[in-house]
Amino acid sequence: MSPLLEKINGPADLDALSVGELAQLAEEMREFITHSVSQTGGHLASNLGVVEMTIALHRAFDFTKDRLLWDVGHQCYAHKVLTGRRDDFNKLRQEDGLSGFPCPAESEYDLFSVGHAGTSISTALGMALGAQHRKTDEKIVALVGDASIVNGLSFEALNNLCLAKRQLLIVLNDNSMAIDVTQGAMAKFLSKVRLSHTYEDFRKTTNRILEHLPLVGKRMEEAVENFKRTLRMANTPSRLFESMNIPYFGPVDGHDIGSMIELFEALSHLDTPAILHVYTRKGKGYDPADDNPCKYHSTGPFEVNGVSEKATAAKRSFTSAFGDAITAVGETDERVVAITAAMPDGTGLGKFREKFPDRYYDVGIAESVAIDMAAGLAKQGLRPVVCIYSTFLQRGIDQIFQEISLQNLPVTFCIDRAGAVGNDGPTHHGFYDLGYLRMLPNLTVAAPADEYELKAALELATRGDKPFAIRYPKDAVPAIPENNIPVQPGKSVRLRSGNSEFAVITVGPILKEAMAAAEELEKDGIAVTVVNARFVKPLDEDIIELFRQGKTVLLAEDNSTACGFGSAVIEHALQIAEQSQDEMLRNSIGKAVLLGAPDAFIPAAARAKQLGWMRVGAEQIAETVKTLKFGAQKADKSLKA
Amino acid sequence: MSPLLEKINGPADLDALSVGELAQLAEEMREFITHSVSQTGGHLASNLGVVEMTIALHRAFDFTKDRLLWDVGHQCYAHKVLTGRRDDFNKLRQEDGLSGFPCPAESEYDLFSVGHAGTSISTALGMALGAQHRKTDEKIVALVGDASIVNGLSFEALNNLCLAKRQLLIVLNDNSMAIDVTQGAMAKFLSKVRLSHTYEDFRKTTNRILEHLPLVGKRMEEAVENFKRTLRMANTPSRLFESMNIPYFGPVDGHDIGSMIELFEALSHLDTPAILHVYTRKGKGYDPADDNPCKYHSTGPFEVNGVSEKATAAKRSFTSAFGDAITAVGETDERVVAITAAMPDGTGLGKFREKFPDRYYDVGIAESVAIDMAAGLAKQGLRPVVCIYSTFLQRGIDQIFQEISLQNLPVTFCIDRAGAVGNDGPTHHGFYDLGYLRMLPNLTVAAPADEYELKAALELATRGDKPFAIRYPKDAVPAIPENNIPVQPGKSVRLRSGNSEFAVITVGPILKEAMAAAEELEKDGIAVTVVNARFVKPLDEDIIELFRQGKTVLLAEDNSTACGFGSAVIEHALQIAEQSQDEMLRNSIGKAVLLGAPDAFIPAAARAKQLGWMRVGAEQIAETVKTLKFGAQKADKSLKA
Repeated sequence: MSPLLEKINGPADLDALSVGELAQLAEEMREFITHSVSQTGGHLASNLGVVEMTIALHRAFDFTKDRLLWDVGHQCYAHKVLTGRRDDFNKLRQEDGLSGFPCPAESEYDLFSVGHAGTSISTALGMALGAQHRKTDEKIVALVGDASIVNGLSFEALNNLCLAKRQLLIVLNDNSMAIDVTQGAMAKFLSKVRLSHTYEDFRKTTNRILEHLPLVGKRMEEAVENFKRTLRMANTPSRLFESMNIPYFGPVDGHDIGSMIELFEALSHLDTPAILHVYTRKGKGYDPADDNPCKYHSTGPFEVNGVSEKATAAKRSFTSAFGDAITAVGETDERVVAITAAMPDGTGLGKFREKFPDRYYDVGIAESVAIDMAAGLAKQGLRPVVCIYSTFLQRGIDQIFQEISLQNLPVTFCIDRAGAVGNDGPTHHGFYDLGYLRMLPNLTVAAPADEYELKAALELATRGDKPFAIRYPKDAVPAIPENNIPVQPGKSVRLRSGNSEFAVITVGPILKEAMAAAEELEKDGIAVTVVNARFVKPLDEDIIELFRQGKTVLLAEDNSTACGFGSAVIEHALQIAEQSQDEMLRNSIGKAVLLGAPDAFIPAAARAKQLGWMRVGAEQIAETVKTLKFGAQKADKSLKA
Repeated sequence: MSPLLEKINGPADLDALSVGELAQLAEEMREFITHSVSQTGGHLASNLGVVEMTIALHRAFDFTKDRLLWDVGHQCYAHKVLTGRRDDFNKLRQEDGLSGFPCPAESEYDLFSVGHAGTSISTALGMALGAQHRKTDEKIVALVGDASIVNGLSFEALNNLCLAKRQLLIVLNDNSMAIDVTQGAMAKFLSKVRLSHTYEDFRKTTNRILEHLPLVGKRMEEAVENFKRTLRMANTPSRLFESMNIPYFGPVDGHDIGSMIELFEALSHLDTPAILHVYTRKGKGYDPADDNPCKYHSTGPFEVNGVSEKATAAKRSFTSAFGDAITAVGETDERVVAITAAMPDGTGLGKFREKFPDRYYDVGIAESVAIDMAAGLAKQGLRPVVCIYSTFLQRGIDQIFQEISLQNLPVTFCIDRAGAVGNDGPTHHGFYDLGYLRMLPNLTVAAPADEYELKAALELATRGDKPFAIRYPKDAVPAIPENNIPVQPGKSVRLRSGNSEFAVITVGPILKEAMAAAEELEKDGIAVTVVNARFVKPLDEDIIELFRQGKTVLLAEDNSTACGFGSAVIEHALQIAEQSQDEMLRNSIGKAVLLGAPDAFIPAAARAKQLGWMRVGAEQIAETVKTLKFGAQKADKSLKA
């Protein structure tokens, strides 16, 4: 029963509701979101926390002309519900369905496709400057979480906020949690602010001031100045923002719709950037999520009223395999310390953290400093392991270049979510790491195909004295018994030798697909050779041997073909060809086929589907070989436009 | 006459000198540095500013076991003079000479090769954690400038400083200048601190406290606490750091050696991270540099006592050409705004800034936010042009990915210092941009060969409605009259057609080298085809035509061969070969030769020399062709190991 929600087809419909009804609407929306996510999976806890804030924002502002910018953005469900997308929630995060993040292609209410942290204040600043140039008066609102505001990008934007000589409201959504508990000085500072008041105290103050707030003009400014002064007296910790010349208001209870609407409206009349500190509760309204916001940060389908989740026998993931591997390595090597950027669970570090709490660091959503800290630790003789998703590691490429590669320091990068990520979609795919890592000198880059290889690579990496990167996807670890051959730096393994002219060389668990393709092709009388390269850098000379034999080589990877593994093999083969002038090698190079992610953004869908679009599923590999052999079919038949 | 300096062969020799003598030594060092830089060129103003601070640091600490970390590091000359490298200054920033930046290969006193901003606090934090693990008691000192502390990486480190439960001194070298005047809220905040005191006031307070400071133990702690309290009362602006829980001391006069030694010694006994604010004067002691620190930030050789610099008829640079081009574009298109990250002069924006002050933004050394601001501006219908050096743009790859490429926004990147940079060496080369840009969807990537093409590319970029990158080196614009053919998106131009089997395809001003090589080869009867690709992405199909004709194609670029232009051409050719099954094309691909930066760090030297090592100088291109034709010579003869 959602009598109010059913009447809301757009933000304008909120105007008809009283504050009491809006509170009721919030309850209905919370129920709708919980139910919906229980069916499809998705981000839950953070979305439950911002329902009232989202309603208040849409009531106070008119986002058909005003501008709302999300940070990370997985907390945009209430926003999507209010902006005409309620009926699409049955296909949340699915192929051709609703994105789990803001998405301009879906709605004009979404301005940027986001997913990485710290962008809202920066892009809002740009939009404010744009409005200054265009002399338009739309209001600009940047939402940012307490986890995102500690990112260097947010700070750089705050430091440059003075460029905007107009309204720009930053709403700090403070739930004291990143995906895990927020870390660092900013978090301590914000918690002091929280502790300095009961909400009751604050409400009394707020209401008293708001009673006297006129709505426009000069007196408005004075009133706001008084308001600020009062808050400032009450809230000495506002100093941090004040010392950066950013007027600070709050904290306000993020579940009190009436107060928020009043504050948003009042603050929309400021002609300067300002920050409003809103306190919310992650998981509010759904007890299991409220009690365990980490678990319900991002979830698969679950039973709403039952105690247990839907029993799905989860397959062992690369993430879990890594978690066990680093714990084992940590036991035998005291020098091993682990660093994460707000993703202890997502990167599988839970067990290591529990076992070695003083050898574990979480720097918050601050990938750049995680890498430089590792450089310092390595310089002191330790063996830091930096655990960051492929897409987020893009924030640290310059640090990998200067502090790790150039200094040639023994830092290991364990890169989860490398390759297609499934339902999270374009902001979260890890398609570029093989490119941005392999072009840097001194690095070893490994892409293990299974758990055996992952563990061995981690041992090699931490025993060594050079930079080392290990990348693996968001997927189950496949069973590839034939791959059980000791891992040596830069050495590949041949798992199948076939007498046909075809060889498939893979890195990572795409090996499993190649093996299945080979089996399939065998039925058609095509015996293909299958090689697991294991390393993208350095490359095994044995791989080149296949070219020398005149094979048609397929290079398959779960990465962009531009700059990827295949590209590396070809570059290497060309170099040898130039030196050796080997005719067979030369002729073979031109027959090579690159299989991997195309030069386009791959939408959310099941990972298996995405691998198909990239032509690296077993079926597509087999099909490509057949097309090469028999012609006829279009090679890119299965490629999505 | 440097009677004191001549006796200093290492930091230990400072111990014998009185504070008065140290001040005298500072004068001698300043004279030595000014004279030396006048001969070799180098960074001047910033080095003159930190002479006393460097002496005080080496006197108060023992950096044979204590640890000193530089940020950016071009202000390390006094440090090099004091640590036994005085005699090497005659080859400063030259091949096989002294690096212009800290360099571990030169001296154990240098811990990291640096050159990019914001790394010192981050790496120092890592080293402090390392010392915690190893239970060692070395003191750790991070030097950071007021220009570097505004970088997001510095902030991320400050936010995580609480991880260190031990001494870690951050010395904030505040000269109120980045390379240009420092921008943003932090700069305003620091200037308030500066204005709040005369040094005399401060000195009196400091001296009074220091008299009562015991040197060790519990009373030390109390005394420091008192000291802090006094300073805090005196300096309300210390709030910014205090609210991040970082004890703040200062400001202290960075030219008063005695006070600094006392403060450094006192603060070295703290068992917690702390920040000391030191006020220095960029260019101090050499009037022309003091009067014009921008001009003397980095300089060529000059006359010390004359009014004018050495008259070298400077050739027109890509930087100047760009400066004129963007000013012209700005005149006809009001939507064009320019953004720089602390490099208005280095990127050639001086003229644009003067002409369009309200369409020009300098965000300080904060590349990430520069890009996101541009995204916001583009979203508002403007045509932002982001001007950042290739190596520093590595700080913003993730922003280019998510905020520009994924949103497909019309932001133009004008990337100076792309390719070999000469004397600045490994931290400053721009060898990776072609890789990290071309792998992102939606981007157009142009590498103009001359001024004509640069201007045309910029016009195309700002007229268009998609992301666009234009990269060019730190070099003079070559005259290539034949290149005067209208620039069309993704179209190459053939400048020479030869009947030999060889074709050279270049991007950027390497074209000039290829043209010279072709002329040279013609003398030997080898008529090579020369094509200027102009664009790295999208690639012109006509380029593939050369492969179809069975040519041996040399792909020459001023970029890493890994992931570079040549690699892009080969990937593209393979894709077409797979579809077309063209035998000639296939066989031709394997004969291609990739010329560009190898998988190694190229040391400081003249740029022409570096291009030679990369085999893309005219001579090496010609030699490669001859080797391919006649065999005999080793192809990599001229390649430096």
